[in-house]
Amino acid sequence: MKKSVYSITTFISKRGFHLASCNMQKTTKFFEPCIKPMLPPGTFKDRIAFITGGGTGLGKGMASMLASLGAQVAIVSRKLDVLENTAEEISKSSGQKVVPIAADVRDPEAIKKAVDDCENKLGLPSIIINNAAGNFISPTERLSPNAWKTIIDIVLNGTAYVTLETGKRLIKANQGGVFLALTATYCTQGSSFVVPSAAAKTGVEVLTKSLASEWAQYGMRFNCIAPGPIETKVRLWKEMLMITNLFKYDSSNFVQKLKPPGRSFRTYQLF
Amino acid sequence: MKKSVYSITTFISKRGFHLASCNMQKTTKFFEPCIKPMLPPGTFKDRIAFITGGGTGLGKGMASMLASLGAQVAIVSRKLDVLENTAEEISKSSGQKVVPIAADVRDPEAIKKAVDDCENKLGLPSIIINNAAGNFISPTERLSPNAWKTIIDIVLNGTAYVTLETGKRLIKANQGGVFLALTATYCTQGSSFVVPSAAAKTGVEVLTKSLASEWAQYGMRFNCIAPGPIETKVRLWKEMLMITNLFKYDSSNFVQKLKPPGRSFRTYQLF
Amino acid sequence: MKKSVYSITTFISKRGFHLASCNMQKTTKFFEPCIKPMLPPGTFKDRIAFITGGGTGLGKGMASMLASLGAQVAIVSRKLDVLENTAEEISKSSGQKVVPIAADVRDPEAIKKAVDDCENKLGLPSIIINNAAGNFISPTERLSPNAWKTIIDIVLNGTAYVTLETGKRLIKANQGGVFLALTATYCTQGSSFVVPSAAAKTGVEVLTKSLASEWAQYGMRFNCIAPGPIETKVRLWKEMLMITNLFKYDSSNFVQKLKPPGRSFRTYQLF
Amino acid sequence: MKKSVYSITTFISKRGFHLASCNMQKTTKFFEPCIKPMLPPGTFKDRIAFITGGGTGLGKGMASMLASLGAQVAIVSRKLDVLENTAEEISKSSGQKVVPIAADVRDPEAIKKAVDDCENKLGLPSIIINNAAGNFISPTERLSPNAWKTIIDIVLNGTAYVTLETGKRLIKANQGGVFLALTATYCTQGSSFVVPSAAAKTGVEVLTKSLASEWAQYGMRFNCIAPGPIETKVRLWKEMLMITNLFKYDSSNFVQKLKPPGRSFRTYQLF
Repeated sequence: MKKSVYSITTFISKRGFHLASCNMQKTTKFFEPCIKPMLPPGTFKDRIAFITGGGTGLGKGMASMLASLGAQVAIVSRKLDVLENTAEEISKSSGQKVVPIAADVRDPEAIKKAVDDCENKLGLPSIIINNAAGNFISPTERLSPNAWKTIIDIVLNGTAYVTLETGKRLIKANQGGVFLALTATYCTQGSSFVVPSAAAKTGVEVLTKSLASEWAQYGMRFNCIAPGPIETKVRLWKEMLMITNLFKYDSSNFVQKLKPPGRSFRTYQLF
Repeated sequence: MKKSVYSITTFISKRGFHLASCNMQKTTKFFEPCIKPMLPPGTFKDRIAFITGGGTGLGKGMASMLASLGAQVAIVSRKLDVLENTAEEISKSSGQKVVPIAADVRDPEAIKKAVDDCENKLGLPSIIINNAAGNFISPTERLSPNAWKTIIDIVLNGTAYVTLETGKRLIKANQGGVFLALTATYCTQGSSFVVPSAAAKTGVEVLTKSLASEWAQYGMRFNCIAPGPIETKVRLWKEMLMITNLFKYDSSNFVQKLKPPGRSFRTYQLF
Repeated sequence: MKKSVYSITTFISKRGFHLASCNMQKTTKFFEPCIKPMLPPGTFKDRIAFITGGGTGLGKGMASMLASLGAQVAIVSRKLDVLENTAEEISKSSGQKVVPIAADVRDPEAIKKAVDDCENKLGLPSIIINNAAGNFISPTERLSPNAWKTIIDIVLNGTAYVTLETGKRLIKANQGGVFLALTATYCTQGSSFVVPSAAAKTGVEVLTKSLASEWAQYGMRFNCIAPGPIETKVRLWKEMLMITNLFKYDSSNFVQKLKPPGRSFRTYQLF
Repeated sequence: MKKSVYSITTFISKRGFHLASCNMQKTTKFFEPCIKPMLPPGTFKDRIAFITGGGTGLGKGMASMLASLGAQVAIVSRKLDVLENTAEEISKSSGQKVVPIAADVRDPEAIKKAVDDCENKLGLPSIIINNAAGNFISPTERLSPNAWKTIIDIVLNGTAYVTLETGKRLIKANQGGVFLALTATYCTQGSSFVVPSAAAKTGVEVLTKSLASEWAQYGMRFNCIAPGPIETKVRLWKEMLMITNLFKYDSSNFVQKLKPPGRSFRTYQLF
């Protein structure tokens, strides 16, 4: 396959999707992924984490890293079988308790039960990671109202429901906590083709900034992280290629090349 | 009533709500409200406008100004009787056709019918103003999931539904258009006590920025305006006072004093 | 010349300079430049304007528009002969007094004298436009400290000197005023290849936001405008082409094509 | 001293300086300062750091922490005697080489010599911290052009000179590096009373964002940190009190109370 990644990226960027693909080969030598934990062993000893979308990908990576540093972790998503496999895998490698909890973040009642479940099995979590997300990569004029609503429900409302449910309990328990939300580099300035996701995730950022101030008095800290493209998941880029009618490539190879400038993310690098 | 506005504002701001109330008396002489239109007569001749929340307040003010400059206007909200009175009033004063349309912006089907209605009675609108909004001024930990969802539905989803419905039709008709969304000064940095509104409105801003780029090719322009406090509506500030347990004042007088620094907005000044 | 503008822009953007050139032909029909004033005749009657960089390009365009709407204008730059020609031209077409004043914005003493001169010949200006600017389009590692300093001096310090000199006098005279500064679309997020200009202009934006609050009590309003590429000046794009070793084109034709998406700016459109 | 910190802060904030002082006593229990290093021992082994303003306060704190984690450090400022004491102190406690270098960041030639000096004594630095700064806390209309220029020279131009000088050498050596610049929480939105500092520091942020992209290909990473008020330095707040005519308090006690909401910074906590 001779055609270079430049022309592909370029083609896409003409249509408004922002990508940074320049000079990757050249710079990777400077930015080797650091695979071992940056923090000392036992950093999260006696901490309980609650991670949505924790069964796969980024959420699984964070659950795994937290457990390896001593945390007990509840991983939450819709697919119980996936969660169970992940929980067993992490539990085995870290020696920590990892609890799988099936819940749809769009449903406040389900979230209430999930936090109940976490309290019963591990205790009230003080590390809450809003990682569950969804996205349609599509020209906006092809989206139905329902497609729009689905993304807002998962990304923005789901984050709010989890934050309200756990935050209220932490306030009542007079116990501080830390909240992390996963956002995206296209939030602040917006982006074509991912408008519901961009709108929802910028809402998450403002929720985060607002509560960082409002709930500081209750001992809570709030942060967002906006990771770039991740090596392990092919689906996103595959879809992007499909909508741009360019899907004539070996996608895994292509994704390999789409790492951000000079960096090579892996999921466990992020937390 | 001797207690000055300064101490009130101050009291509120200690709790995290950002207000600018300083030096009002001193500066008003510099910033007299300009009541006559800034634009030449007939500027919006042959244009059709579609304004949500157009029955009262700011929306009514914009409808009125647009009509006085030659536009035909559809005003949309849930309360048909309010709309009918407003429509008649503006129609009489401007000599333009003003059409009242009852619809709830949270319901995509209702929006579809409202745009149908506008097309049938006036034509396809090329000025779309997303002005309908809702807000709870409340400590975030007192909000139910349902309260959160209601604001997101009205402000963010409502704006999206109107934008998708009218945008798709304008693209199909190969006809440009202008979109205006009303946001708030507390969007970008967030704010305590109005978190769902801040999250929803920053989502609207990102929707706006995204489509300004993505739909430029279809001849559409997108803008937001974030007005400060408006003189005519007492409700907002009354609620704010209530939650801070300070409601011992004559609220209309108080609101009079809460104008932004050196400016005195009235609704018709904004468009 | 068959090679399309797309590939050029693309080539440049691979190197980090952000350009939006997509779909120009398609959208221009929607965004015809509006050449006649948007404001009613006589809008700026009895107003005195002070415009740096007022002899050519954008500054000349704004001087011309202000004069045509009734203002008297002082235009300020280093080249007296250019200023004199412009002053005569605008004065003739508008019937307004236009005063040429030679001064280097980097020199606070020169600015003091220029404002003295304006006061003597026209009066204290209440419209102050900080339009003078400079830029090096260059990989940052090729810049000398002196090149860096020159841009900061003109763009950021020059704006500050003019603002301080006129602001102090307006405060003393207890007379409000309006300030406009010209910035750039690459301010907020930064940009490769124009780093000193980006740093200086974002400084101007923050100066503007800060004084909009601090000096509101003195009846002063502050705004920035960040125009896109302008049709009339070839130099900027010519340089850009030179540094990217692509200068094999008829530049005037090329610039013609580099208008922002769907828009065709001309200098008099901006104010 | 009965008068509470609230009324003071409040008084200041009415004049436009943004302070967050709410609920300090209440929240400190949640955010105890963590005094031991967050990173594993030897993290910066074999690294050479170059820190401007490294003789006192924050710069000294960072130099000390870096050395304790294994780095060799050059500390740079105008006062050689202060530097020498600091260098000896840190060297003794950490066992690392710490080199004092006298230079004024406003002078590109002096910076060139300082980097030469560092190269000769330690080697080419790959950790560059632009920490030197200056500020006037003053109503803007009381600033002379020279006062303005001084802050821009130290904060913005000084950072640029250090970045250009070290960056060019790192590019030539084909060796990556990390750059950290100290900015301020009042950058993005601006602030009354510290306008030259706000303008300069936002310029530093944009320089940082721009080069993070442009020089990524050379293996360089760029970051800013905007610390809140620091416990150890009384001068800043003392000045602030002076200009607001409130200096009737025991300042060290006052500063103690002015920590950001729920946090208690100490200098060594920042890096």
